[in-house]
Amino acid sequence: MALKKKPVTGMKDILPAEMQVREYVMNQIRETYGGFGFHSIETPCVEHIENLTSKQGGDNEKLIFKIMKRGEKLNLETAQAENDLVDSGLRYDLTVPLSRYYSNNAASLAAPFKSLQMGSVWRADRPQKGRFRQFVQCDIDILGDSTRLAEIELILATTTLLGKIGFKGYTVRINDRNILKGMAAFCGFPEESYDQVFIILDKMDKIGMDGVARELAEVGYDEEKIKKYLSLFESATTDAAGVRSLGSVLKDAMDQEQAENLAAIIDSVSQITTSQFHIVFDPTLVRGMSYYTGTIFEIQVDGFPGSVGGGGRYDKMIGKFTGMDTPACGFSIGFERIITILMDEGFTVPGKEDKVAFLIEKGVSDDVMNGAIKEAMEERAKGVTVLVSQMNKNKKFQKEGLEKEGYTLFKEFYKDALK
Amino acid sequence: MALKKKPVTGMKDILPAEMQVREYVMNQIRETYGGFGFHSIETPCVEHIENLTSKQGGDNEKLIFKIMKRGEKLNLETAQAENDLVDSGLRYDLTVPLSRYYSNNAASLAAPFKSLQMGSVWRADRPQKGRFRQFVQCDIDILGDSTRLAEIELILATTTLLGKIGFKGYTVRINDRNILKGMAAFCGFPEESYDQVFIILDKMDKIGMDGVARELAEVGYDEEKIKKYLSLFESATTDAAGVRSLGSVLKDAMDQEQAENLAAIIDSVSQITTSQFHIVFDPTLVRGMSYYTGTIFEIQVDGFPGSVGGGGRYDKMIGKFTGMDTPACGFSIGFERIITILMDEGFTVPGKEDKVAFLIEKGVSDDVMNGAIKEAMEERAKGVTVLVSQMNKNKKFQKEGLEKEGYTLFKEFYKDALK
Repeated sequence: MALKKKPVTGMKDILPAEMQVREYVMNQIRETYGGFGFHSIETPCVEHIENLTSKQGGDNEKLIFKIMKRGEKLNLETAQAENDLVDSGLRYDLTVPLSRYYSNNAASLAAPFKSLQMGSVWRADRPQKGRFRQFVQCDIDILGDSTRLAEIELILATTTLLGKIGFKGYTVRINDRNILKGMAAFCGFPEESYDQVFIILDKMDKIGMDGVARELAEVGYDEEKIKKYLSLFESATTDAAGVRSLGSVLKDAMDQEQAENLAAIIDSVSQITTSQFHIVFDPTLVRGMSYYTGTIFEIQVDGFPGSVGGGGRYDKMIGKFTGMDTPACGFSIGFERIITILMDEGFTVPGKEDKVAFLIEKGVSDDVMNGAIKEAMEERAKGVTVLVSQMNKNKKFQKEGLEKEGYTLFKEFYKDALK
Repeated sequence: MALKKKPVTGMKDILPAEMQVREYVMNQIRETYGGFGFHSIETPCVEHIENLTSKQGGDNEKLIFKIMKRGEKLNLETAQAENDLVDSGLRYDLTVPLSRYYSNNAASLAAPFKSLQMGSVWRADRPQKGRFRQFVQCDIDILGDSTRLAEIELILATTTLLGKIGFKGYTVRINDRNILKGMAAFCGFPEESYDQVFIILDKMDKIGMDGVARELAEVGYDEEKIKKYLSLFESATTDAAGVRSLGSVLKDAMDQEQAENLAAIIDSVSQITTSQFHIVFDPTLVRGMSYYTGTIFEIQVDGFPGSVGGGGRYDKMIGKFTGMDTPACGFSIGFERIITILMDEGFTVPGKEDKVAFLIEKGVSDDVMNGAIKEAMEERAKGVTVLVSQMNKNKKFQKEGLEKEGYTLFKEFYKDALK
């Protein structure tokens, strides 16, 4: 029986050219974030099904690859429902595993703890172009710091990284869930309707102010509320002053310190950074995950729809594991998104020196072959890349292929040394 | 409900100190193997269940983490057996996925293709000390080269790597499945009994020559066969000459060229290498996997039981996917084993320069905080690691912890600048 040659649905084989770019970016990530004092950690790809279905993952919980119980624990006859057969699943993000990791290991970790986690996650999404069922996420998180130093460091680390791999002219959009809520409260939306209101608000960049007004009306909110709500967005400016003035309008509907905190983050980042990006206050920024409790942010690159990264503060999630709240804030870059952009732009990994290929005709004497390999070993010891390969019958085609891989120097070894 | 803090059974959270060693070794692997012209590739962690249960994986097929079908494909009511519920599983090795990868992508790959694959694999083994259910494998393979150049390059690459990370005085044991078979044939064991004979032979290092003789007798082989068989092992020397003389004894039971090929590999490696290891012919080396078709090898480090790497030639596996045989040969290092040895020996990652920690008292002005971060950013741009952190109440304890992480320089920022 012939076996299946294609990868499983929605997952992909990664070819050498893409791997080079991926490894280069991963090295930049480790180096840059390492320079900010983030520690690399790793969690298992497999997670308890209870943790994965604890309502921390939003819609992602519908997309879990579930793993069957094994041995005696698996009982097909008595199983009533899917979950009787399952005890674990593949992680769909790195935040739930990080929270478990911190709960499990806090005593051995620095406080505050700055974590860097890169790893694959899995979501059984409908396969589509550029979206895969296995993909790499790259998260930095600061656990145990309730102050805005966390947000500022996360934004600076992420933008420093993007600068190093060549991104320019992008925007960090920032908001605070408390401002979102304050605006809704101020306009008289009932608290239980916030999620519905925010889901509509989240479409602002697609359907515009009119579209949002229409959809809010369609689900039954009265015109006065809607008008009051939208006028708040119209009057807000995108700088720290905009946050402060909105904060004073909302003074009865939210804590003033929360607005001041967001304004101060924008001030600090703008003052400190020398990188080529803008940080703007965006009161329409929602971010879907229900676990966010404060600041939220997202990165948008000119000319590319969607975001290439995002994150925020989630002060309540670790408490679900430990019973004791731990302040936490994280920033995730869209690793696959970034690789796609770099590949599409024909990015080449910098600083690769000459590579040498030794081609050896079939049937050479052991002396000739050993001599060639010995020479290769001497060059390799100096740091040169040397490929020692059989010479193919179609040598011209073989050399063309090697040139495409960056081999510029060739040395050939023949059976008959005079050839 | 409190969530589960411990990782799933048999899997582990990796702490920062171990991650540093792992990342250092992985970089050495990529750099060393890259210098030999190996290309990094990646295959999905999830593989078709058909491919995983195709008898290429030996006993590992009993240890598969199986993934449930999703959506409409999952029908609990009509399911008769476990496999009705399953369409994929986590890979238990990197060789089956590599063979699928090569079958799927050969047209885009160099010929011969030198592959480097590092990645996690999963086996639902009984958990025990030092053995985990998720662990990293690191394989190099040469696909499309039927000559011994492949074996020689694989052995040189692997030993060069081990030298770089500090291993000395270890042994590469080498054999050929054809010699194993030739010896059994020569002594009159029937072909269908080879596997049984080899399983017993494989225990030689544990139970000795007498133990092997006893077990062979116990399963019913006559004394004459056993005596003849064991005398072959007694007379064999461990160098290339030993291979050649055994080959001439077995001249009616095996192809002479196969013995000469193995002898020539030992000659070449001994002549070329300058690394501190021995390559020895070991006719008792079996290696369990049924897919090996020729040379097999294993690395043994003095003072550590078991092997820290192994591999061999498997010329028939890719043909199971494509219908057309492709010569293939691979060497896998025991990544987790190597990390354990290094950690136990107190290995420290070389070449880490001073790290600086800025500690900021709670309640400092924005000006002081921004100034500190700005200074940190300037140092980071020069390549210095600078941690900017809240100052904890117990500053002494905090600094002791940071010193353990390698921070040697501290700068403190106070609310009251005169403090």
